[in-house]
Amino acid sequence: MKKVAIIMGSASDLPVASRAADTLKEYGVPHTVRVCSAHRTPDEVREFALGAREAGYGAVICVAGMAAHLAGAVAALTTLPVVGVPVDAGGLGGLDALLATVQMPSGIPVATVAVNGAKNAALLCVQMLAVTDAALADKLDAARQAARDEARAKDKDISRQYADGGQG
Amino acid sequence: MKKVAIIMGSASDLPVASRAADTLKEYGVPHTVRVCSAHRTPDEVREFALGAREAGYGAVICVAGMAAHLAGAVAALTTLPVVGVPVDAGGLGGLDALLATVQMPSGIPVATVAVNGAKNAALLCVQMLAVTDAALADKLDAARQAARDEARAKDKDISRQYADGGQG
Amino acid sequence: MKKVAIIMGSASDLPVASRAADTLKEYGVPHTVRVCSAHRTPDEVREFALGAREAGYGAVICVAGMAAHLAGAVAALTTLPVVGVPVDAGGLGGLDALLATVQMPSGIPVATVAVNGAKNAALLCVQMLAVTDAALADKLDAARQAARDEARAKDKDISRQYADGGQG
Amino acid sequence: MKKVAIIMGSASDLPVASRAADTLKEYGVPHTVRVCSAHRTPDEVREFALGAREAGYGAVICVAGMAAHLAGAVAALTTLPVVGVPVDAGGLGGLDALLATVQMPSGIPVATVAVNGAKNAALLCVQMLAVTDAALADKLDAARQAARDEARAKDKDISRQYADGGQG
Amino acid sequence: MKKVAIIMGSASDLPVASRAADTLKEYGVPHTVRVCSAHRTPDEVREFALGAREAGYGAVICVAGMAAHLAGAVAALTTLPVVGVPVDAGGLGGLDALLATVQMPSGIPVATVAVNGAKNAALLCVQMLAVTDAALADKLDAARQAARDEARAKDKDISRQYADGGQG
Amino acid sequence: MKKVAIIMGSASDLPVASRAADTLKEYGVPHTVRVCSAHRTPDEVREFALGAREAGYGAVICVAGMAAHLAGAVAALTTLPVVGVPVDAGGLGGLDALLATVQMPSGIPVATVAVNGAKNAALLCVQMLAVTDAALADKLDAARQAARDEARAKDKDISRQYADGGQG
Amino acid sequence: MKKVAIIMGSASDLPVASRAADTLKEYGVPHTVRVCSAHRTPDEVREFALGAREAGYGAVICVAGMAAHLAGAVAALTTLPVVGVPVDAGGLGGLDALLATVQMPSGIPVATVAVNGAKNAALLCVQMLAVTDAALADKLDAARQAARDEARAKDKDISRQYADGGQG
Amino acid sequence: MKKVAIIMGSASDLPVASRAADTLKEYGVPHTVRVCSAHRTPDEVREFALGAREAGYGAVICVAGMAAHLAGAVAALTTLPVVGVPVDAGGLGGLDALLATVQMPSGIPVATVAVNGAKNAALLCVQMLAVTDAALADKLDAARQAARDEARAKDKDISRQYADGGQG
Repeated sequence: MKKVAIIMGSASDLPVASRAADTLKEYGVPHTVRVCSAHRTPDEVREFALGAREAGYGAVICVAGMAAHLAGAVAALTTLPVVGVPVDAGGLGGLDALLATVQMPSGIPVATVAVNGAKNAALLCVQMLAVTDAALADKLDAARQAARDEARAKDKDISRQYADGGQG
Repeated sequence: MKKVAIIMGSASDLPVASRAADTLKEYGVPHTVRVCSAHRTPDEVREFALGAREAGYGAVICVAGMAAHLAGAVAALTTLPVVGVPVDAGGLGGLDALLATVQMPSGIPVATVAVNGAKNAALLCVQMLAVTDAALADKLDAARQAARDEARAKDKDISRQYADGGQG
Repeated sequence: MKKVAIIMGSASDLPVASRAADTLKEYGVPHTVRVCSAHRTPDEVREFALGAREAGYGAVICVAGMAAHLAGAVAALTTLPVVGVPVDAGGLGGLDALLATVQMPSGIPVATVAVNGAKNAALLCVQMLAVTDAALADKLDAARQAARDEARAKDKDISRQYADGGQG
Repeated sequence: MKKVAIIMGSASDLPVASRAADTLKEYGVPHTVRVCSAHRTPDEVREFALGAREAGYGAVICVAGMAAHLAGAVAALTTLPVVGVPVDAGGLGGLDALLATVQMPSGIPVATVAVNGAKNAALLCVQMLAVTDAALADKLDAARQAARDEARAKDKDISRQYADGGQG
Repeated sequence: MKKVAIIMGSASDLPVASRAADTLKEYGVPHTVRVCSAHRTPDEVREFALGAREAGYGAVICVAGMAAHLAGAVAALTTLPVVGVPVDAGGLGGLDALLATVQMPSGIPVATVAVNGAKNAALLCVQMLAVTDAALADKLDAARQAARDEARAKDKDISRQYADGGQG
Repeated sequence: MKKVAIIMGSASDLPVASRAADTLKEYGVPHTVRVCSAHRTPDEVREFALGAREAGYGAVICVAGMAAHLAGAVAALTTLPVVGVPVDAGGLGGLDALLATVQMPSGIPVATVAVNGAKNAALLCVQMLAVTDAALADKLDAARQAARDEARAKDKDISRQYADGGQG
Repeated sequence: MKKVAIIMGSASDLPVASRAADTLKEYGVPHTVRVCSAHRTPDEVREFALGAREAGYGAVICVAGMAAHLAGAVAALTTLPVVGVPVDAGGLGGLDALLATVQMPSGIPVATVAVNGAKNAALLCVQMLAVTDAALADKLDAARQAARDEARAKDKDISRQYADGGQG
Repeated sequence: MKKVAIIMGSASDLPVASRAADTLKEYGVPHTVRVCSAHRTPDEVREFALGAREAGYGAVICVAGMAAHLAGAVAALTTLPVVGVPVDAGGLGGLDALLATVQMPSGIPVATVAVNGAKNAALLCVQMLAVTDAALADKLDAARQAARDEARAKDKDISRQYADGGQG
């Protein structure tokens, strides 16, 4: 199976990035977690991106805040799908990282997810791999079913709790 | 009397959604509280929306955060009035949920209230029902009068407290 | 049948407001169109709002731009449902009018629709009236069906036009 | 001397509004503090605004959050100068109240100050009164001088503290 | 009568600033129109501000776009009331000028009006002068009445035009 | 090869959506173009999404403006990767569609690209398919090379044009 | 004298970038104009940045729109001062490029100027060079004086034109 | 060596401004720390700015929040490079200070860094001085190397910690 790389721009992004790792682990998708900064270690970013396809990666998740260039920097040097996770770091609620990640110029896409949405970034990668991996697709379906069941259980609980609506 | 449904996208929206339930209870308006997610349990949303009029509902309140699609998803499948409550969940102060709820395309309205404004969503439903229910209209008038009296009492207190304005 | 009032804050809002009138006319809902400004003719706003229920109105649509207070000013003086249409007037894309309309305090709801969304404001009023008017509900269903048919026809056209996708 | 009225939309605005009162007190400007809501007690707002000039007021300060209509509602009914103080109440940092206060239509100005800027609202009123009151103008000058002296003292302290800049 | 100064930061602001001059002329308020830039001619700004009270001015209107510092720069050097008009110059719709004008620190207020709202800035100055000038107050009342009459006439026209609402 | 579906929420989105189709055609990726609205034809959206994997699709591109729910609605019903293209439709510059598309809740990712970025959406799909398709990966590399060559040619032209920098 | 490099991310940025070149030419500062994209030609960016100091450059101006990474990418690879010019390209008024340029992480500064502010970027570089170049400093002073004189001339014109303020 | 001045608009900005001082100290760059307000002590700002070049300064860092005029006020009176640090002070996350600092008019640049980015402001000054100071340039390179080494160490730690990715 192709591997997924999770790269965070700073070690301080680990609380967000770790959720991507946890999710890939749940799905049994092999992955690597790295700290590489587009600004402080651009050579590492470059080396990683240029060799990623060769190294057996099938997708790259980039987690970064503020003027979040990491996903774009990786996407510029590989044609593997790159998923960007904007991080909320500072007073602007992550709007800076969101715009810096998603507003990529024509030719170099970054698949952007919600601010701090690292779990969804991982799921997106699983979904990509599952296109040609029926077993993985089944796991995704099972997880959806589980989420559905959980939501239904909560629905039951809460709707029962309010069942006397207006008459009580 | 027609019933009102309160649907929240996630059980975590209950602190906001419960205020709608409390308000409907005050007015004696029968209501149901549900957890149905446009994304995790779309079938439940669909089933509910398609059958809502038949089931005796007169309005639906949808409470959701982030890319808040719940109100729009319900509104697409019923011609009952749908009231959307954007929830502040994340760093953007609810602006994401507000825009995702209010900016509906022509043909499918959602009556949007303030971020976290679940009480007003309930009042709006009461107002709709009161158009053909004089007793309910009287209750609304009474509540307005009570709010007015309370505001006046506070006005009295505070204006008295500062009554020596500038001379003290 | 209850009437619907359409009030615009300025005659310059007519291009937006007229779409509400057109829609109400399509549905055969009796309506009145007024120019009343929360700022320039507050007495007219007041007089209208205080007498609206008595005068046979079932809902009020308020269309205004910038610091759009009209809907809130009407909502403060009637317990009829008030629908607010923020107008894009100036460089801020209608964000000013949207926030000034939707962010109402607890107790005084305004049912806000999209920026310039006057047609949806009218549909929302029709939906409210249709809760107790089966014929009107049928008309809403028919319009939904027509919109669906139109969308399907366009789907057919465009999907056919691109039917050789990638092979051409 | 003309009086200044401080009106807050809700008693919860008192922590902000009280700073205006404190400032007016410092300057010996007679003032009244009221709780009047454009939405909950519009009649009180109206009555106050219509009689304000007659009652000896020379300016009105309105303190309100969210869809802050209070200043506009007062300004619509008096030609006294109205100063608006947007309050930060909710997740949008006061941007909603700022736009709802400042973006007034042509003909009905509201003199808007910074979010939560009640002290400056009071100073603005003092400045207005000081145009024809030399003693008050002198007090303003004295306060400026005091602020200057305080800033200079801090400048001295901090510049001394860092006086070995780069050599230490 | 006290004079009003209108200062624009750039000659390119004249289309906005001229509306302030026109309005002051209507009210017979003596005024001066200047081009003084907080950035290009700070000495002129300074000289003007320091001498403004002595020179017989009762208020200063500052019209500027982008990082609009003009009003703040004048307000720092006079205790006359300073009215700021943010100008929409660039892609941000005037939000930059609005925030740069209104978010003044404690101690130095700027009375801010809507983006491009130069007419309201002039009216605000007239209102300030009218506090101690009954004739001017009467003119303001007359103008309000005229605006009311004009709005009522438009109300009549448009409401008549739609008088067959829904029946036609 | 897996197919890609391009779904637009309204026929008016065709100018944006067609760029995705053009790009897929360049890469020889089979594709379908549809008009399906989350709000006007939710049944079509549902039917499409539920059957998409079975029908041989490997990814779905959703193009929509305003409260852009289309991508989320599809993503809720398939575990195929869904790419969202927010469309700039209205005064808010596409910020509404961007937030409504990208801020998806945990569990249901949407791979969001820039406002109006349909070409990049298509490239992202090609990149996903290319993970297991070396020929497609080569085409992507070739296109990158061509873009690089074109940029270099422009660099040459423009740098030559300015070659006398400062001495001329 | 040290040279200044002007790099634009796309040839379409030339109308903005050329103003920087024109300004440098006025000051006789040798400069180079390049098209290098952080995303399409990252190797050129890299090569340029790594060799810039050696090649005799004293500052680098980077002009780019949307998710504007160019300035940050250059700044990551040189310790020369890098000036970023955000370009308004798309519906967001340049807010995306501004945040992507200015919100740099600790350690890698980018000196950001206004949206489309290429002339100021050039002036900033001239100012840097002028710190150790008295002749250049004199030219800057002369230009300031000229701008002052021009502003004063306009002040004279316009103030004369309105000289009968209020009496006419 | 030229000195760098750090000016903060208020003593409350010291926690941000002190990081600039600390950084300059690390690099052995002589510096002065001042509290001078564009609004409360404009004369001090003026005096400082007019004499800054003569006094041996090579750059000025201005730290201010809200309607942050300080950098612009200094830049208007000196042709030394001025670096602006917007401070997050209030509910708007520093967006007010950012726009008030960066959106300078043509002719008077301010080199703006990230909200609260005082360390980067200092680094930018060091970079300017290093253009003609090889020893300082070497220190900058060394610091970059140290940051790189630190990032690499964290990369090693974290990648090892997750080394069993998906297999564990």
